[in-house]
Amino acid sequence: MSEAALRGVRILGIDPGSQVTGFGLVDQLDPAGSGIRHVAHGTLRPRRSVSLAGRLDDLHRAVLALVEQHRPDVASVEQVFVASSPRAALVLGQARGAVLAALGASGLGLHEYAPTQIKQALTGSGAAAKRQVQLMVRRLLALERAPALDASDALAAAICHAQAGRLGALGVTSRTRSRRRAQTVLRVRRAP
Amino acid sequence: MSEAALRGVRILGIDPGSQVTGFGLVDQLDPAGSGIRHVAHGTLRPRRSVSLAGRLDDLHRAVLALVEQHRPDVASVEQVFVASSPRAALVLGQARGAVLAALGASGLGLHEYAPTQIKQALTGSGAAAKRQVQLMVRRLLALERAPALDASDALAAAICHAQAGRLGALGVTSRTRSRRRAQTVLRVRRAP
Repeated sequence: MSEAALRGVRILGIDPGSQVTGFGLVDQLDPAGSGIRHVAHGTLRPRRSVSLAGRLDDLHRAVLALVEQHRPDVASVEQVFVASSPRAALVLGQARGAVLAALGASGLGLHEYAPTQIKQALTGSGAAAKRQVQLMVRRLLALERAPALDASDALAAAICHAQAGRLGALGVTSRTRSRRRAQTVLRVRRAP
Repeated sequence: MSEAALRGVRILGIDPGSQVTGFGLVDQLDPAGSGIRHVAHGTLRPRRSVSLAGRLDDLHRAVLALVEQHRPDVASVEQVFVASSPRAALVLGQARGAVLAALGASGLGLHEYAPTQIKQALTGSGAAAKRQVQLMVRRLLALERAPALDASDALAAAICHAQAGRLGALGVTSRTRSRRRAQTVLRVRRAP
């Protein structure tokens, strides 16, 4: 039996943030069943001592390294629910741009879920509190202690995707992307 | 005389956008004088047919390709003046994140200028209209016709940086970054 068959489908959940980006990996052992196994989780923290461009490059490289190390099959992220200021949205957007560009480069299928979908998948209620989601992440993955919130949110996105696979027949859909390599349209007008 | 000495300091101006990213390159021939020469300008347009992550990866690759092709010495971007909605700021932030991560990866010094600084440098007035800036970009670079607005804004950022070098003695400052390679702090907690 191959390693891939043993581990099932490996899902990378990721929660981009301007200071801290949470990540979590779970294996969906049986597409039709409920078996999921915790693989790893943690946070990516770009250096504080460098410029904005340097920090975003840190983040881009860290995501590529994560994919290289754990070889996930798909990625799952939470759709942004923007409630804050334009300034905060811009800063979050920049981190998200670096993370998603790296996921795009790695050719992973990317699935996005609304916050309510994730809460619903984990707790049965789309209005559940963050701590309740964190509790269920810990319980479903049989973790000794609760992961930090950033990593917990990332694991929740991954678990939600595992559930969505089973719920596909019920009409739950998400966006995906082929593994086709990127080919950029680049127009350059030269000096005469 | 080396090629670098002949061309002076090459400045990449870039204007990130969610649909179109403008770019422009100028050579500052003499750090102490006013000589600038147009090198190239144009727009980067990610494919529309792919996912968000794919488009951001397109943008990241296109910026790396631009740096590879033209070998600029520094980069100059306009600081974002956020007047629009959080949703628009998030979308712009994502494009900006992909572009800045690529500039960070290329190790270029990155300088940011406020919109008023750029207008002031090009027209003598921080309150100048966009069309007036576009007119001055065309005039200063002796272009046969006006560049599209996205590329014109990018060229304006590059020209502003060229001027800022001369104005350094007057106290004009900007942020920069060393060429030191990125080294990401990556914390991973593994499954027990």
